[in-house]
Amino acid sequence: MGKQAMDRSEHTDPWIRSIEVKTSPPSLKDNTADVDRLIKGIGKELGGGEVKVDLSLAGKIPSFLRNHGYQAETVLYKGVSSWHLTELWPPADAGSVCGVAVDLGTSVIAIRLLDLVTGDVKGEASFLNPQIQAGPDILTRIHFAGREGGLQELQTLLMDRLNKEIHRLAQSRGISIQRIVGASVAGNTTMTHLFLGLDPYWICREPYIPVLNRPGLIRPEEVGLKINGRGVIFVFPNTGSYFGGDVMAGILASGMNHREEVSILVDVGTNAEVVLGNRDWLVACAGAAGPALEGGVASMGMMAGPGVIDRVLIDPATGEIHVRTIGNLPPVGICGSGMIDLVAQLYLAGMLDVRGKIVPERCGARIRKIDGVPHLVVAFSKDSGTGEDLTLSQAEIDTLMRSKAAMHTILTTVIRMVHLEWKDFRRFYVAGTFGSYINPRSAIVLGMLPDLPLDAYEALGNTSLAGAGMALLSLRKRNEVDGIRNRVTYVEMNVNQEFMNEFSAAKFIPHTDRTLFPSVP
Amino acid sequence: MGKQAMDRSEHTDPWIRSIEVKTSPPSLKDNTADVDRLIKGIGKELGGGEVKVDLSLAGKIPSFLRNHGYQAETVLYKGVSSWHLTELWPPADAGSVCGVAVDLGTSVIAIRLLDLVTGDVKGEASFLNPQIQAGPDILTRIHFAGREGGLQELQTLLMDRLNKEIHRLAQSRGISIQRIVGASVAGNTTMTHLFLGLDPYWICREPYIPVLNRPGLIRPEEVGLKINGRGVIFVFPNTGSYFGGDVMAGILASGMNHREEVSILVDVGTNAEVVLGNRDWLVACAGAAGPALEGGVASMGMMAGPGVIDRVLIDPATGEIHVRTIGNLPPVGICGSGMIDLVAQLYLAGMLDVRGKIVPERCGARIRKIDGVPHLVVAFSKDSGTGEDLTLSQAEIDTLMRSKAAMHTILTTVIRMVHLEWKDFRRFYVAGTFGSYINPRSAIVLGMLPDLPLDAYEALGNTSLAGAGMALLSLRKRNEVDGIRNRVTYVEMNVNQEFMNEFSAAKFIPHTDRTLFPSVP
Repeated sequence: MGKQAMDRSEHTDPWIRSIEVKTSPPSLKDNTADVDRLIKGIGKELGGGEVKVDLSLAGKIPSFLRNHGYQAETVLYKGVSSWHLTELWPPADAGSVCGVAVDLGTSVIAIRLLDLVTGDVKGEASFLNPQIQAGPDILTRIHFAGREGGLQELQTLLMDRLNKEIHRLAQSRGISIQRIVGASVAGNTTMTHLFLGLDPYWICREPYIPVLNRPGLIRPEEVGLKINGRGVIFVFPNTGSYFGGDVMAGILASGMNHREEVSILVDVGTNAEVVLGNRDWLVACAGAAGPALEGGVASMGMMAGPGVIDRVLIDPATGEIHVRTIGNLPPVGICGSGMIDLVAQLYLAGMLDVRGKIVPERCGARIRKIDGVPHLVVAFSKDSGTGEDLTLSQAEIDTLMRSKAAMHTILTTVIRMVHLEWKDFRRFYVAGTFGSYINPRSAIVLGMLPDLPLDAYEALGNTSLAGAGMALLSLRKRNEVDGIRNRVTYVEMNVNQEFMNEFSAAKFIPHTDRTLFPSVP
Repeated sequence: MGKQAMDRSEHTDPWIRSIEVKTSPPSLKDNTADVDRLIKGIGKELGGGEVKVDLSLAGKIPSFLRNHGYQAETVLYKGVSSWHLTELWPPADAGSVCGVAVDLGTSVIAIRLLDLVTGDVKGEASFLNPQIQAGPDILTRIHFAGREGGLQELQTLLMDRLNKEIHRLAQSRGISIQRIVGASVAGNTTMTHLFLGLDPYWICREPYIPVLNRPGLIRPEEVGLKINGRGVIFVFPNTGSYFGGDVMAGILASGMNHREEVSILVDVGTNAEVVLGNRDWLVACAGAAGPALEGGVASMGMMAGPGVIDRVLIDPATGEIHVRTIGNLPPVGICGSGMIDLVAQLYLAGMLDVRGKIVPERCGARIRKIDGVPHLVVAFSKDSGTGEDLTLSQAEIDTLMRSKAAMHTILTTVIRMVHLEWKDFRRFYVAGTFGSYINPRSAIVLGMLPDLPLDAYEALGNTSLAGAGMALLSLRKRNEVDGIRNRVTYVEMNVNQEFMNEFSAAKFIPHTDRTLFPSVP
């Protein structure tokens, strides 16, 4: 609700506008053409700026004006310099004028339907990226795109699903698809390329070059997005193969680029993307955070959903594991944030040692050996929603340990590169669905996140989606995106000997150097 | 040649440009995207300004750059504010970059192929407007457009022929159609609407309102023009139903809007369009000049072509008629300008009286009665190219007399409206194919044109085509068109009692008031 309220209060400079126009009928004394007459009327309300009208729409204007008493509800969007007439409706039709913000995730796509006049959120939906069937990750999709017809297939998969979901969402809110006149799309560089139908071939090949950096405004028909055909799509820019529009949108949503104090924004997905800076400078860095942080990769890990464990508490005295599940249902699995909670609690209860290894004497009956690998029972079959024991293997814990070590190393490396220390940071933004659910205390205990006061941590939720929505609603925000892009310095993370040393030290809970984590017992 | 030379000397600010770009290959230190890398290279040559690239072209750039050593010949056009990348070719391909100027006449369409880099005229062609088969004049075409599918049919007729002729012209000059990246189109308001696929329904109905006044820049695909699909078409604006882009182009071509002295520009077609003014003011007026001034309407009149009489001299002593024909062939007909010469000479030889009636006693053996109407033999069967007598009927002469009277009345009315007299004019521009061939002396003798010194008359040829070419070659000229449009005051000719009195007086040769024509004996 905080974000939505912010969006609304900032909604003072829309670039997609609905304008009621009343023109005077033509006469022998005023033989201005119908289109120009309408533009004149719009110009009065708009307060200046050239207005362009597509021929396909121009042809409809004469009979429209005569049939509706020379009045119309018009919709316009602002391009680079001119306004463009998008639609005209009878004034009596009065309905919402909407747009859709899209977070093009590699795994999950989220859409938000916005009322462009009020800034209200009309609805949201999220769904698995259908391109997963062609390739689970970016790299396999890039290779898939290289096949005969592969690029087209990936784009079609995406567009068909996106169109279906947008239509479903609009329909459920009683909004005609013609009333959706704008879209704003933020995704990583490869996802953005696939959305645009551009071959990402060179993105994964040295020196890692995207086709383009600034798609800007495009027409829906150029990509096959089935909103109002004369509408417009704003596509977030990237600054390279590893730093995409989703992070630009994240910076926009965080507002860190306006503050005097230095903030850090971390978006944990398949990669951990880190941005730090303030109103004077912005540095971005990306590195592999490891698969354990993404739902669906660990055998037990899964996306948040009914019955999925998202919080864990262990009684250190008894070793009793208390789990909270989504919907308070019997547990059927665990998501990434639940896993971080679990591992932190296991450590605090002495059931894992500083290396993250299961301590048999502390785990007792919870230990199972499956295929020779030790497993820990998180929920016994009698309590689980599956009727079977829910277990976590040592291998899964090891993966999480590597991921948390990677995260810590990335964060440490990044702040060292800019010659800062953790005490310099007042704000630590955690973005992403994962960030929304993570318990910062557990992440600190694990040594995954730095030992800052808990109130420094702020979960921003899906900042890519929030930023996309902001750029859709505000011209200033839309223009700010290019400013952010131009100001961000992208730093390639050098995986050198120093990095590897740091990584090795970070593979302990919380760290070999415990002075870094004074709050962890 | 004069016009072409002028076009070339002014060709210093092209808005469609060919730019050779050499970019540096990408590296880990410079991971700018391929499109942005190319744009950067173009920007250096262009000297600033945003460059937009369509997705369909963007997708081709990565492999293009890698296949051609990061070099390209690019073509760009300037829109309202940004430049647009239109095409890229291998640097070795080096060919012309061309555009086509189009004069969309109601009866005849003229096209001129221009080299956009040098400004050279590559070729020209003219052909009958194929819409004639649907309706010979504007009014019947407007009605035809109102039928089911009629508008589409008219546009298709036009486009198919235009595409065929442009392709033929390009092919004859060895120019690939992809190398034609721009077009500039000037026509009257209705023809422009039909070109754009816009219904001209309200143009002929009070209060005579066009669909639009300023089509501006459109994409070829919007109208089905088959030049390079990513090219651009500039369409001349109108200021109303009766004052179209052809006249705007005429003003542009004459340059009268830059001069201190007051000039008058007359374009004689189906209508006589008159513009007068200087760098401070422009007034335009249109009125029906009558069908006799257009080839193909009078039974003997025809378009200029081999064997067509374009000059006539009569020996007043003998009544001998000497004719000059195009190609010096035996005469087969007479064109409008030839007819004006003929009638003036007949009058000077005393073979017509001041009312324009045949004087039997002076014409002798040249008189024939056909269906009870007196005819005059212009060329006897033994001298003609048809083997039959070439005759001119009293009815045809009467039509010409009405036309010349209309022209004189229009000119007189227009200059009275602006409170000027003929002595205030230094320049009298006669535009149109008709204007190119007219003998001003004959037109003065008839009382059709005012009795100015002969050197005040200047035939500008097809000013609509010339103006279209100028706007295609120069950004300043293209922008000037809107300035002209905004400055022209259109004056509706009131056909009131005073007009009719003037018209009656002008139906004599040269006029009832002979003091107006002191040079005519």
